[in-house]
Parts: sequence; C-alpha cells; structure tokens
Amino acid sequence: MKSNNMSKIQISKAKRIRCTPYTSRIEKMGLSSYTVYNKTLLASGFADSLEETYYHLKNYVQIWDVSCQRVIELSGKDSAELTQLMTCRDLSNSKVGELYYSPIIDDQARIINDPVILKLNQEKFWVSIADSDFLLYARGLAIGKNYNVKITELDINTFAIQGKKSSELLEKVFGNSITELKFFNFEYFEFRNAKHLISRSGWSKKTGVEVYSFGNTGLDLFDYLFEIGKEFNLKIGCPHLIERLESGLLSWGNDFDYCENPLEVGLEKFVDLDNDINFLGKNKLIDIKNEGIQKKLMGVKINADKINLFEAIDIDIDGKKVGELRSAVFHPELKCVIGNAMLKKPFFETGTSFNIKIDNVNRTGVLCNIPFF
Amino acid sequence: MKSNNMSKIQISKAKRIRCTPYTSRIEKMGLSSYTVYNKTLLASGFADSLEETYYHLKNYVQIWDVSCQRVIELSGKDSAELTQLMTCRDLSNSKVGELYYSPIIDDQARIINDPVILKLNQEKFWVSIADSDFLLYARGLAIGKNYNVKITELDINTFAIQGKKSSELLEKVFGNSITELKFFNFEYFEFRNAKHLISRSGWSKKTGVEVYSFGNTGLDLFDYLFEIGKEFNLKIGCPHLIERLESGLLSWGNDFDYCENPLEVGLEKFVDLDNDINFLGKNKLIDIKNEGIQKKLMGVKINADKINLFEAIDIDIDGKKVGELRSAVFHPELKCVIGNAMLKKPFFETGTSFNIKIDNVNRTGVLCNIPFF
Repeated sequence: MKSNNMSKIQISKAKRIRCTPYTSRIEKMGLSSYTVYNKTLLASGFADSLEETYYHLKNYVQIWDVSCQRVIELSGKDSAELTQLMTCRDLSNSKVGELYYSPIIDDQARIINDPVILKLNQEKFWVSIADSDFLLYARGLAIGKNYNVKITELDINTFAIQGKKSSELLEKVFGNSITELKFFNFEYFEFRNAKHLISRSGWSKKTGVEVYSFGNTGLDLFDYLFEIGKEFNLKIGCPHLIERLESGLLSWGNDFDYCENPLEVGLEKFVDLDNDINFLGKNKLIDIKNEGIQKKLMGVKINADKINLFEAIDIDIDGKKVGELRSAVFHPELKCVIGNAMLKKPFFETGTSFNIKIDNVNRTGVLCNIPFF
Repeated sequence: MKSNNMSKIQISKAKRIRCTPYTSRIEKMGLSSYTVYNKTLLASGFADSLEETYYHLKNYVQIWDVSCQRVIELSGKDSAELTQLMTCRDLSNSKVGELYYSPIIDDQARIINDPVILKLNQEKFWVSIADSDFLLYARGLAIGKNYNVKITELDINTFAIQGKKSSELLEKVFGNSITELKFFNFEYFEFRNAKHLISRSGWSKKTGVEVYSFGNTGLDLFDYLFEIGKEFNLKIGCPHLIERLESGLLSWGNDFDYCENPLEVGLEKFVDLDNDINFLGKNKLIDIKNEGIQKKLMGVKINADKINLFEAIDIDIDGKKVGELRSAVFHPELKCVIGNAMLKKPFFETGTSFNIKIDNVNRTGVLCNIPFF
C-alpha cells in the first residue's frame, strides 16, 4: 500500500495477537503492513500502492482475510430478547438467513459496537463484530439480567471476496446458486466436503461476499480461488481506506466509539423508536431526537494532496476549534483529501468552510455529506 | 530487542490504535517494534538486544510507557459492591491508598481480566487493566443489575520506572517520601505544579513505581527524568519477556484468557472462598476446588537456544498432545528456553518430561514450578 500512515516500525507477534489460518499465505503475497483488530492480525497494506489497489478493487476482484471480524454466538431461550435489548434496530421481524447491520448501544445510547447480526434460527444469532469486546458487554448484561443464554466466541475465520468481478469468480466455483444470493442474505455452500456460511456482504460498496469457515476449513477454498482467479485478475487485498471513505462505510474506533450515539454519526436509518420493542437507551434516544444532536459526523474535502492521519486533527473556524478530523485519505479522482470529521453544533452544515493544519501547513476544507458518491 | 518474534512487517497507524503522550519521544529513542495492547501502541523492542536490555533492567533503571494499561474508574454508591461482585479476591478489608491485584471473573469463574485495583475512596476505584475490555463487562453487569455506578475510561497515561536503580533516581526528584512508599501502596506527588498518582508497583519483580498522569501532564516529569537519569544509566525500555517469565508474572491473552479460571493458572492466593462475601463464580470455584482442576499452567524448560513463539505450540508425551506452550523465551543465564505451558490432567507434575517441535526440530523439555527463581 505504501500508505503514508506507516510508522516504519515493525509489529511484534505473540500469542495474545491472534494469527489466522490465512496469515502464513498472506505474508508470502507482498504484505507490507499490519494493524491489529479484535486482537487479531489484519493486513493493512501490500506492495502495490493504495491508488493501485483502489483501481484494482473497482475493476477486478480481491480476497481479504477478515478473520478479525470475530463471530460471537448468542444461543438459548433468551438470546432473541438479549439481542434486541442491545440494539436500537428493530429486529422483531428479522428473518432466518438474513444479516442485519445493528448498532449495539448501552443505556446511555453510546455505541458499544456496530456489528452485523446473522439470524441462524429463532434462538441462535451470530454477531460479526467491529473492534470492541462485544462478548464482554453481552456477557455482563446477561449475567446481570439472569438471562438463559450462552455467549461464546466461535472459532470462525472469515475471508471476503470483494470487487467488480467477484460474482464471476464465485459463479465459477458454485454456479448460479451463489449469484442468486440476495444482498445481506446468507446460505450454506459446500466445497470439497467443507460447509461454509456465505453471505452477500462485506466492507466495501463493490459487490462481494464473505465466507465464514470454522477453524482452517476455509483454506481449501481460499487456495482454489487463487488457483482459478487469474482470469479475473484476482489479488490479495484488505479493507480499503479510499473505497470505504468514499462509500460512507464507518469505522468503529476511527469515526466514532462509545462517546457517540447513533444519531450523531448518521445511523438514523438503524434507529427504530416508533414501536413497542424494548432496548437499552431507547428513552435516551427519544430525548436526543427531540432536543437535537449536539455534534455530527460529516464528510470533509480538504485542499491537500496527502495526509498522514494517526490521531484526530483539530478543525478550526475563525481560530476556534469546532471539531476534529477522524479518518482521511487522498482521493485520486477527487484530487483532494476526503475524510470523516466530528463537528460541534451549530457548525455541522454542508458547505461550511474550515481551517486545518496538516503536517504543520494550514489547509482549507469544506463540509459535505456522507457518502461522497 | 532484535527479538526473534519480529514479523519484519510494519505496523500501520490509525486513530483507532491510540498513540500516547510519550509516543513521539519513544520513536526517537531507538524503538524497533510495537505491539498493540488495549487498542494502544506499546513498545515491544528497541535497538539493544533482548539480552542487553535484560541485564540493563537488572542493574540499572528503565522507563516504560505503559499507557496501554488503561484506567477504568468505577464511582458512586454501588461501586464497591460491583467491584467485589467481579473479583474472587476479598476486598472487604481493602484500604484507601492500596493496590490489589484482582482476577476479574464471570459467573463461570472464567478470567475476564487480571487488573490492579486502586482504592481511591470508599466509593471510587481505579482499575488498571490487562488487555481486554473490562469497561464493557462492568458496564453490562451494572446495567443488568441496575447499579448506581459510573464507569468511565479515564484520560490517564501511565509510565513505569523499573529496575535496580529506580529508587535512587526517584529519590533525586521526590526525596525520601517516595522511597518510603510501601509495596502496592500509592500516594500523590507533585512535580512542577502537576500532581501524579505514584504507586510502588509495575510489571517486573525489580523494584519500581508507576506514574499515573492525566492527559499529557506526565511529559514534564518524563523529560526531567531523562535529563537527570544519565548517572543511573537510565534508558527507555518496555515490559521485558525474559524478566517477566523468570519472575512468574502472567500475561492475560498469552498465558491464559477467558477459557481459564484462577485455580488453573496458579492464582489461588487471590481466590478467597472462606468468607461470606458475594462474587460471581464463587460456587463454581468451590466446586472446582473440590473436584480438582483439569488443567494447570506450569513452567517449562526446553533444550533449545532460541524460540519464535507467536501462537501456542503443542506439547506431546508419547506422541499424544497433553498441553501447549503459550509464552517462551531463551534465558541467557539458564541457557535454555523457559516458558509457560497449559498441561492437561494428570500431566501437570513437576519434573515430567515432554517433547515439543520448535521450528520443525524435535526438542525435549521438563515441567517446573512458576516462578523460575
């Protein structure tokens, strides 16, 4: 990736930071940098530049090892009640075989995690989590409420197949049945006697799927895809900063965390208040909605040709801090830096100009809506 | 450290992985590798070899940036009850001004975290945590139990001063008062108008303290210590694998995690069952104690002159897996690899020989007690 947020400092390994079944393969495929996500190694850059991998993802197909999206299973008599208690999304009509992007909040409506929930049956849910220990929150709550529910981290390792040509590649392995899989639906598919749960989903707005496999049972399929993938220009990859920012996919820990509520970060679509379901933080969210939010996550465009963001950067208007930039990258087509910033009230209006200092140089920027395209 | 668990792959930075007030300084001091701990950068190696830094720590003094030991505050009417509910250590006679190493367990006695708890007053506790999201467990539990308690992560950044000469260095700054501070006690000390909570503690068995400072208020003291530290041969450092293993200091995530209970990992000393206090998992621990543990963390000595451990390695007896090695390092004085391993019943007897394959070479080892010295 030759990304400019490299530290030039190596990562050291220990058992505490989980390797995945795919780690040894990926390290032979031009891997240049790692991050750590849910105590698991996550590739963050390869030999090709960030711009090269951006166009590759747009035009061809990539495989990403996202085993760091740990899968927590909630099962048992009270699992549905507990799952609903933790999210502001109405799951009362949820269907087996579907995925639900669901903000997990606490009694103050603070966002604990923003996972995708898979409904396996009426008493079994898989929660594919973002970078915080959802298991501990759920377990604490279940113990406190005396719920009859089993909460365990499964030995599931997920890889994603993302990009324009992902359907063609998948069809070659599984035939029509997989291309007929609807967006945010999942089904089981077999490959050489191993069963994989495959969902039409993934952390890019390009078409794609995610393959959930127990232990290292996904290796055969992973290897086979690379065997046959040449004709589609398949390459190894990883979640892509340019693509996820332009598409408006948010990142827990970068764009928001448990200091924010769903209304502040543009997740209104997943906040269901007009119903009689019971979830934590519901009254708080009703109050916030009535009073209006005090800060808001906005898109930004900045007149700069590079940025090295590894902590929040102040955003000023008339010399006064009014917000902070939380994620950013140079966009090769927009020819400017794009990013997500948290702005205080009343400064979160589209079109508002601001100042920001990047690498000690004063820059100007303007607020815009998310997503960028 | 030139450690052999280097991956040669860089770490990439993002806001999601917290920098500390000391990060920019440490990166100019010969830092060669990072790990991530509680979503915070933690130095794991410097230009000097692991052996050199081991003898340096034994004979001189080091400063470690351990801001990754995040501090969670529990305050309010029910904070003492909640704190006790989560730990098997009897805190009923705990005193303000003291620290308590306390396994945090759940209703099945699984270890959620093994923090040090500081009692600030009868209704305020600081929990200096190991590498798991204790805040989420405590918050889930507090919500479920409807407790009146505020649980927040404080903006505290801690550095440790560890090593034989740490007292002499500290005396030069704070005089006698700091050398009189007893083991696992804390007090407030002032330096240039900034107040720091300083405790006689730290993740080495060498004498030392930890300095808890809000925001970046610790920078002045940090810099001053390096100004005056030359005469004690002060160097930058980080938690030391050889020293912590020989001393029997355990690492959550490496040696154990929430698949183990305190009796299995040698923490009997911190399990108080003969009393009428109320904590989660108490009955479970009584049962386990009566039935006997089914696995046990043991020390090992292996005939090998190096090891590159980044995931658990199988331990065999007569061709059958009986356990796994979880942490290990070559010890320059014992001239063998030492480490911590989890052994199944009935194989956890001191003196038992075993086989292990390291880098595809068959090695023999023997079980021993923890600590090694």
